Amino acid sequence: MARPDAFEIVLSRAFTRIVGRGTPPQLAAALRHAVFPGGARVRPRLLLAVAQAAGARDLSAARHGGVAVELVHCASLVHDDMPCFDNAPIRRGRAAVHAKFGEATAVLVGDGLIVGAFDVLARACIDDPRLLPALPVLAQASGAAGGLVAGQAWEAEPSPDVARYHRAKTGGLFEAATVIGAIAAGVEPEPWRAVGAAFGEAYQIADDLLDLVGTPTELGKPVGQDIVHARPSAAIELGLERAWARLDDVLQRMRGAIPPCADADALHRWLDEACARLFPARRLQPCTGDALTRDDATATALSM
Amino acid sequence: MARPDAFEIVLSRAFTRIVGRGTPPQLAAALRHAVFPGGARVRPRLLLAVAQAAGARDLSAARHGGVAVELVHCASLVHDDMPCFDNAPIRRGRAAVHAKFGEATAVLVGDGLIVGAFDVLARACIDDPRLLPALPVLAQASGAAGGLVAGQAWEAEPSPDVARYHRAKTGGLFEAATVIGAIAAGVEPEPWRAVGAAFGEAYQIADDLLDLVGTPTELGKPVGQDIVHARPSAAIELGLERAWARLDDVLQRMRGAIPPCADADALHRWLDEACARLFPARRLQPCTGDALTRDDATATALSM
Repeated sequence: MARPDAFEIVLSRAFTRIVGRGTPPQLAAALRHAVFPGGARVRPRLLLAVAQAAGARDLSAARHGGVAVELVHCASLVHDDMPCFDNAPIRRGRAAVHAKFGEATAVLVGDGLIVGAFDVLARACIDDPRLLPALPVLAQASGAAGGLVAGQAWEAEPSPDVARYHRAKTGGLFEAATVIGAIAAGVEPEPWRAVGAAFGEAYQIADDLLDLVGTPTELGKPVGQDIVHARPSAAIELGLERAWARLDDVLQRMRGAIPPCADADALHRWLDEACARLFPARRLQPCTGDALTRDDATATALSM
Repeated sequence: MARPDAFEIVLSRAFTRIVGRGTPPQLAAALRHAVFPGGARVRPRLLLAVAQAAGARDLSAARHGGVAVELVHCASLVHDDMPCFDNAPIRRGRAAVHAKFGEATAVLVGDGLIVGAFDVLARACIDDPRLLPALPVLAQASGAAGGLVAGQAWEAEPSPDVARYHRAKTGGLFEAATVIGAIAAGVEPEPWRAVGAAFGEAYQIADDLLDLVGTPTELGKPVGQDIVHARPSAAIELGLERAWARLDDVLQRMRGAIPPCADADALHRWLDEACARLFPARRLQPCTGDALTRDDATATALSM
């Protein structure tokens, strides 16, 4: 196992305060199950890459911003897997929180992680008040008016607004990651929003594609769920060929959206690596087997 | 219907931003159902009474703090009523959110209100950074390490810690109300914690008593639930007579805990009125009927 890096250390420490001596033991175990071991931590890593590219000298504020974003993401996965939503028994290749700890605990784990996210970010703001604008950015990306909560709710609406649904369900937290990264670096944040929006759009298209052509082992969760739950899917709407082309377009738009900054080259290198890892090679046949090949493994992070 | 006062106006405006144009319509209706019409708004009113007693000249910060506390409270009621917790069909005399809008929406309403609470408080902090310490106070009162989330979780633990359970489930948010009221007034907040703790303890004892001797109409929810759900109850543990005596003791302790402040008399007058309204006259017989008498109506707020 690799040694934990600086981000994982900050996440661990923050988690230890969120889950303190006053936490009931079953709840504490369930909270830990929801956060560790994590997936690829894509959102905080994007946030940190933006903060570095934008010239942040000290990454402490960015790391705490990243922890907050990751905790909100983990909360959304826990609630989304519940029987009243996707009823998914498996997440990250292990039992989902509700399957292992029960529905009541799953509700509370999500609640506790949302509260914990704002707690971490608020404490970071007390240390460095320049981070304060990150709080409403995180709230916007998480909440009922166009954030993650809205995204999950669109799935249950009789007439979902598909563009709003995708932006809320996936794009919002990636946008928040780039905006908060810029805030942590002390630069004008809004120009960075388009980078996160495009990254999120690409991520959503890749997720839709892998739901059709991926395997459960790759994804750490069941495939074919978009059809089962009648969820809007770019891969189903456009067909595989055009969806792959759309993914390429969006990734190109993302690169073009990077504003002038202290170290754009480093960000492009980070994106090269992240894209190679997250966005799988073009595959035009649904994959029905479940063998874990070496190449397939690189896509595992997508579900995480 | 009485004209809305300044607090309800601030709450309404904050709600309009939390539930914006990006909110799916069903979710928006469910969020409104969870917050309006409200109960007695006891926690924000206590917060405002403390802020005034502590010498706050401008109550704007305190009102926003009160909105945040009330939204967290509403979120906890929505999740607590769900089938995997209390399975309570009725709240405030109307259908509970899960009963009217379904479980998935109930989960999301709670999530959206928690996010909204921190959003409101964060924006108030941007306007007035002296309010910043209120954010971790609210997080502590709401979260997994001894806050509301812990309180709900203790109900499902095999060996609940009863003192921690009550403090987390009820006391924490009242403590936060008095502490945030003091922060909003710009005075040392910690001495105010004991006032909120005692208020919360009294509230919990009264709630336990009314669950035994109250009527569903008084409470706006089913009675006898502590026995049904095997929840710790002061009224069951001590017996009615001693529980009433404990309530008197705690209310006296609350009065004694009020620190020296700008206008203690006004706070005592507010408490006189609140106690008369919230803590019912001694009643030693379980009430099995469900007629709403004039005197009974004063206790309705307790469940809200």
